[in-house]
Amino acid sequence: MSVPAFLRRIFRGGGAEGGVRELVQLCDALLAESGEYASTALAREALAKWQGLDEPSREEFFDLLVRSYSPAVEPLKAAAAAYQAEPSNETLVRLQQAIETPRRELFYRLNMAPGGTAALVEMRRVLLAKLKAKPEWRAIDYDLRRPLRAWFNRGFLRLERIDWRTSALVLEKLIEYEAVHAVQGWGDLRRRLASDRRCYAFFHPQLPDEPIIFIEVALARGMSTHVQPLLDVQAPVGDPADADCAMFYSITNCQDGLRGISFGNQLIKQVAEDLKREFPHLRRFATLSPIPGFRAWLAKSAGRELLSCIEDPAWHAGEVPESLSHQLMAYCAYYLLRAKQGDEPLDPVARFHLGNGAALEQLNWLGDTSESGMARSAGVMANYVYRLGELERNHERYFREHAVAASSAVERLARECPLQGQAAA
Amino acid sequence: MSVPAFLRRIFRGGGAEGGVRELVQLCDALLAESGEYASTALAREALAKWQGLDEPSREEFFDLLVRSYSPAVEPLKAAAAAYQAEPSNETLVRLQQAIETPRRELFYRLNMAPGGTAALVEMRRVLLAKLKAKPEWRAIDYDLRRPLRAWFNRGFLRLERIDWRTSALVLEKLIEYEAVHAVQGWGDLRRRLASDRRCYAFFHPQLPDEPIIFIEVALARGMSTHVQPLLDVQAPVGDPADADCAMFYSITNCQDGLRGISFGNQLIKQVAEDLKREFPHLRRFATLSPIPGFRAWLAKSAGRELLSCIEDPAWHAGEVPESLSHQLMAYCAYYLLRAKQGDEPLDPVARFHLGNGAALEQLNWLGDTSESGMARSAGVMANYVYRLGELERNHERYFREHAVAASSAVERLARECPLQGQAAA
Amino acid sequence: MSVPAFLRRIFRGGGAEGGVRELVQLCDALLAESGEYASTALAREALAKWQGLDEPSREEFFDLLVRSYSPAVEPLKAAAAAYQAEPSNETLVRLQQAIETPRRELFYRLNMAPGGTAALVEMRRVLLAKLKAKPEWRAIDYDLRRPLRAWFNRGFLRLERIDWRTSALVLEKLIEYEAVHAVQGWGDLRRRLASDRRCYAFFHPQLPDEPIIFIEVALARGMSTHVQPLLDVQAPVGDPADADCAMFYSITNCQDGLRGISFGNQLIKQVAEDLKREFPHLRRFATLSPIPGFRAWLAKSAGRELLSCIEDPAWHAGEVPESLSHQLMAYCAYYLLRAKQGDEPLDPVARFHLGNGAALEQLNWLGDTSESGMARSAGVMANYVYRLGELERNHERYFREHAVAASSAVERLARECPLQGQAAA
Amino acid sequence: MSVPAFLRRIFRGGGAEGGVRELVQLCDALLAESGEYASTALAREALAKWQGLDEPSREEFFDLLVRSYSPAVEPLKAAAAAYQAEPSNETLVRLQQAIETPRRELFYRLNMAPGGTAALVEMRRVLLAKLKAKPEWRAIDYDLRRPLRAWFNRGFLRLERIDWRTSALVLEKLIEYEAVHAVQGWGDLRRRLASDRRCYAFFHPQLPDEPIIFIEVALARGMSTHVQPLLDVQAPVGDPADADCAMFYSITNCQDGLRGISFGNQLIKQVAEDLKREFPHLRRFATLSPIPGFRAWLAKSAGRELLSCIEDPAWHAGEVPESLSHQLMAYCAYYLLRAKQGDEPLDPVARFHLGNGAALEQLNWLGDTSESGMARSAGVMANYVYRLGELERNHERYFREHAVAASSAVERLARECPLQGQAAA
Repeated sequence: MSVPAFLRRIFRGGGAEGGVRELVQLCDALLAESGEYASTALAREALAKWQGLDEPSREEFFDLLVRSYSPAVEPLKAAAAAYQAEPSNETLVRLQQAIETPRRELFYRLNMAPGGTAALVEMRRVLLAKLKAKPEWRAIDYDLRRPLRAWFNRGFLRLERIDWRTSALVLEKLIEYEAVHAVQGWGDLRRRLASDRRCYAFFHPQLPDEPIIFIEVALARGMSTHVQPLLDVQAPVGDPADADCAMFYSITNCQDGLRGISFGNQLIKQVAEDLKREFPHLRRFATLSPIPGFRAWLAKSAGRELLSCIEDPAWHAGEVPESLSHQLMAYCAYYLLRAKQGDEPLDPVARFHLGNGAALEQLNWLGDTSESGMARSAGVMANYVYRLGELERNHERYFREHAVAASSAVERLARECPLQGQAAA
Repeated sequence: MSVPAFLRRIFRGGGAEGGVRELVQLCDALLAESGEYASTALAREALAKWQGLDEPSREEFFDLLVRSYSPAVEPLKAAAAAYQAEPSNETLVRLQQAIETPRRELFYRLNMAPGGTAALVEMRRVLLAKLKAKPEWRAIDYDLRRPLRAWFNRGFLRLERIDWRTSALVLEKLIEYEAVHAVQGWGDLRRRLASDRRCYAFFHPQLPDEPIIFIEVALARGMSTHVQPLLDVQAPVGDPADADCAMFYSITNCQDGLRGISFGNQLIKQVAEDLKREFPHLRRFATLSPIPGFRAWLAKSAGRELLSCIEDPAWHAGEVPESLSHQLMAYCAYYLLRAKQGDEPLDPVARFHLGNGAALEQLNWLGDTSESGMARSAGVMANYVYRLGELERNHERYFREHAVAASSAVERLARECPLQGQAAA
Repeated sequence: MSVPAFLRRIFRGGGAEGGVRELVQLCDALLAESGEYASTALAREALAKWQGLDEPSREEFFDLLVRSYSPAVEPLKAAAAAYQAEPSNETLVRLQQAIETPRRELFYRLNMAPGGTAALVEMRRVLLAKLKAKPEWRAIDYDLRRPLRAWFNRGFLRLERIDWRTSALVLEKLIEYEAVHAVQGWGDLRRRLASDRRCYAFFHPQLPDEPIIFIEVALARGMSTHVQPLLDVQAPVGDPADADCAMFYSITNCQDGLRGISFGNQLIKQVAEDLKREFPHLRRFATLSPIPGFRAWLAKSAGRELLSCIEDPAWHAGEVPESLSHQLMAYCAYYLLRAKQGDEPLDPVARFHLGNGAALEQLNWLGDTSESGMARSAGVMANYVYRLGELERNHERYFREHAVAASSAVERLARECPLQGQAAA
Repeated sequence: MSVPAFLRRIFRGGGAEGGVRELVQLCDALLAESGEYASTALAREALAKWQGLDEPSREEFFDLLVRSYSPAVEPLKAAAAAYQAEPSNETLVRLQQAIETPRRELFYRLNMAPGGTAALVEMRRVLLAKLKAKPEWRAIDYDLRRPLRAWFNRGFLRLERIDWRTSALVLEKLIEYEAVHAVQGWGDLRRRLASDRRCYAFFHPQLPDEPIIFIEVALARGMSTHVQPLLDVQAPVGDPADADCAMFYSITNCQDGLRGISFGNQLIKQVAEDLKREFPHLRRFATLSPIPGFRAWLAKSAGRELLSCIEDPAWHAGEVPESLSHQLMAYCAYYLLRAKQGDEPLDPVARFHLGNGAALEQLNWLGDTSESGMARSAGVMANYVYRLGELERNHERYFREHAVAASSAVERLARECPLQGQAAA
């Protein structure tokens, strides 16, 4: 398509000192459009312009979004005053209208372009990456996150099974995104999609080739306790008819630009139900999970003696004294059950699964001996069990009473941690 | 699916004096859910409950939505005061958060249910039908319309051609919805989908069997001036290769619940472009349109003498004196060009096409002799021409200068209207 | 596409005394093509030419197919002689090659054209319609039926459910083809596709909009005995969850050109299995079937007295003496159980269901009081029951011992027929 | 599915001395079935049994197919005699019926099983692999090839573009099957599917994940003369808008079991037309082809002196004297233009492209320096040009006059070959 006349006219005046100026002109034109008439073309142009900006220009654009696309101050103050004077339906709606920001309207209109949704997810990714350094950008995030949340409403997502019939374009994304246990090329991926495995992802109609979140499952006989056998490309493919456990061993959020718009709990529950339907003989749905915050917490909490034992990166290579392993396991149980951030567990993976209503079932010594497994979790892995009949009760107790559902074995372990006495003291 | 335990528990307490109470309990439970965990099930139950309510109960529910699901007054007053005191990014975001209504959150969550989007469109239809009598419900509409607008963002709609290969379920909806020229059963519809016709509709992924808006096009040799031949089921099917005009003779918004969220201008433009690609020899894209407000305006504006001539419903049946027809056409031209509602034309169809950038080309005497055509438009029909190269300019002039693009023939006619002198006087 | 040079050349010589000559030139060119190079274009042209021929020309073409496209006589005689002299693998293959007819090769090549399969099915329909008058065309049918049988191999057909979501193009075909109980327009069809009904059809990938055969099923409480209630458009829609019987009340072969290539038994069995899976509470799969040959047989077999009672077309309108109804039922049972054509029942519907392994369960007095029902079956209808566990045994006994599986009630009825004594005498 | 009763009964008698016996029992039961009733189940069982046989058992089964599934000798002799006595339509059809082999009927019925078509393609692959050693199996091949040809009729195949959106299951097959220039893993494949490349394949509805034949195309600026740059994974991706040549650099038949049922010429022509539509600026459609028989022919045809120069596998590694390269090119041109097998070129790739109507345009020195390229073609590659307007004439001249279309440059080269004089002498 050739550039329409209205686009050429938009740029006519400009001294053209750069892309941001042109982008802003396009955004203004887009907002000025009544009847949405030329909007699609303007939105497409604006997004193309945005995508062509370098990093400093993008920052400049964000700054402008804060400065120039906030609601008009005086009318908003007036509406605020009116509501204060008499809080009613009328003054409420008037205040709502006065607080609508041009920013948010802009995002709605940008979404009309083909590929608009994907571009706005990407824009938010860029925004979030610098939000700490630019706290004033929170105002943008507020206006971008709301529409994204509407567009990515759970009702619009569809669960799809990923297997070897899936397009290479999507499979390649899995290799790229997998955040828990990195995929070592196509052979590794193929093994993870063999007949004793399952992989599911949520997709959105506007991002047809982009998984939003995906989960990897192993169908196993007995609960898996160590992850390296699961990741072994050479491992023989089991018969799913023999399996009695579905082991969720990896779950990855793919879109940084959707941070805070969560789908994970929906995914696990729906996958568990689908699997139960396909394999009625499955008795247990459980995770084999990392404990990502354990090692960092340990460094702050444990005594120097213990820490010195695990200082050497190769400390677990030879024979490990039982006293050491026992002590580490006890610390780990204590960490998961007692270490808090507010009312909730300090460990993010624990928060996620316990919040879903799962129960902490078991800790596994040297469950993950990979470099990152040792560095983050001192090699320990956890099994969280999803008992479909108890999820709801656990979930409620977790949120109401901050109760952590855990097996008695893990409870016992935690009581054997040296810190336990101190806390009681 | 059996009723989950948490649903049974929700209703345990209630003295069950009716569906509204249970619906409110479900809504509260849905809003209380953190982690969206049981939300889908709750949303489904709530919508089913809503769908089962009778009319008075629905009104009661809407009243409750106004009363009990508005933002908390005191925090909002405080946030309003803070913004007034110092309008900044921080106070703005705080005010935005304080003004978020539980209502809108509720609508977001209800949309998670399967079929949620369709149910909310229907809910708004019910709401709008009584909005005049219940002005306080505008607060609900404000919170329902915003998410609907996000979900029905143009980027999510797909244009689909409707033909005889389309499912009967969708075709039946066309018969039901067609608002301009009613469809007389399947035979009529089949003719409207023959090879010298085209029909297109916008669909949304969440309403797969529901057209949002559809348009009917006849491929004709020369501009069509009378609608009855187009609607004649027995009319021979022409060869589209001979056609030089695409006549848009009907456009229908199907979803009352989406009123005010417009798609029509996008549709016409996109269809015109698609047709141009398929039939490069098409030279003209024009409508054959009713003038729905003409007769009512005439009753208020014309002299008694003229009105008495067209009092008898059969006035046009025999020979009509040329002086009468000329006078009516002149009044009609005047109506379309000079009769205003604010700055825009009084006639809604004129507003729509002129706003799209089309030009009023021609008026057609006895263009629609159906009962409704006579009753609304005194039988006159209009051709609005979409000249792809001029749409943009007309559109801009229409919105900036309220200029109505019209042919010199129609301008001349308007000048011959008796009212013209009076206005000048 | 413009006509390729080779097509123009083909026609260059011809004195063009008509379409048949040109068609034969195209067929010769198609057969002469090595490497299938221009074959698709030639095949398309040839089929278009065939479709344009009038009836006498088509007959002339068929005559030519017999005369000029048979195997060469002398080589075939030689190969026949060689096989006679020494029947071996070599002489067999040689004879097979010599007997390959240019006709069959021609049909293979015509099938390369887009729409070729449909065109050849249609060609066979035309052929079969006159086969009695033109017995020499059997040679053509032999060569056309074989490839059609290969192309319509059961493995290539897919069973599809037909419902209100199906395209109008296909639904219209159902209205057109339904051969057992004619469909009275779209309203009737809609009722037959309501939620207490099922309709399934076989489709072939090359005829995407053409059902090959379809079956209509009513989900009923108790076995249906009268067809008029099933055909009543106003009948309330039942809840399939209440049904315990699946009543097959209509099965129609759609393609006359595929006569003798049967699919019906596959269809019923597969549909029964699909229904059993969807509705595990269904206890009985049965038909409500016409007895199309009964009345004609009765006219030849019954005494004058009985026949005179049913001479008046309105004989059943008032009260029918029980003696008459009993006598007719007894004749009907006798007809189904004893009247033969070779070893099999004279009645074609009985042959079909009994051959499938169903059992004749019950006869229903005035089961079909439509004009055609009275004219063909004297109003009687039959229930054949498909007991999934017995089909196989019945089927085998039917084909080995010509045993007709029937309930004792029907057996008893047959013994009460006056003819029974005569036969025994 | 549990084993049906009739299957258990089939095996009841058998002394069960092995799979072949059971397979033959299943085949007999399948042939004995009237009404195709239990056929699908029997066909599935029989194919499963066949797939489980080891190699000697499969040979035994083929031997049995020859011995026991040929037509009955006496009726065939009688029919042969009748035809000899009086060749007529009736005696022809009778002979046709008598010669129908149980074998072919068996193959038709086996095709009813799910996956039947794929299994029979595989069965023919096994058969063909030993046909030389077992000439009597030709009778089987005759009866298997005919139905396969019907099932794989060109009209049933659909052309699909293969790209990075294609399923990994299919892409993996490309890596496995590619016969001309082996694919070096997923990275190599990805490059071959980049935006300056195209890949197309034919698929059959019964083998949805199996390409039948595929072709690889490079969109290039100027005609490609050397294959290594095309195969270079690191080569920068070009802009297809700049390309003026479509280079067919690899075409692979995937199914050995379909040998002799050719699709290649259709594929190239259709792909060329599709590309022309997508990229109207393409001016040339040409191949970059191996000359697979050159080296072997050279070894028999050239003098000892020349052969000794290229004896060392690394002869081309350093500088090659121009006299040598010129001599080799002249031999190669002579080989392609003059060396014959019957009336056609000895080189199979030349036969294929010339038969399609392409012209030999150019020979490229060291066009393929891979090990196999040197071993088969002494490094020379050929460009065959597909001029869409000349294909038909070339094709006809090739088949009628055995004329080889070649550029004057290649003709000249051939005349400089030492053999040229000898032939003339």
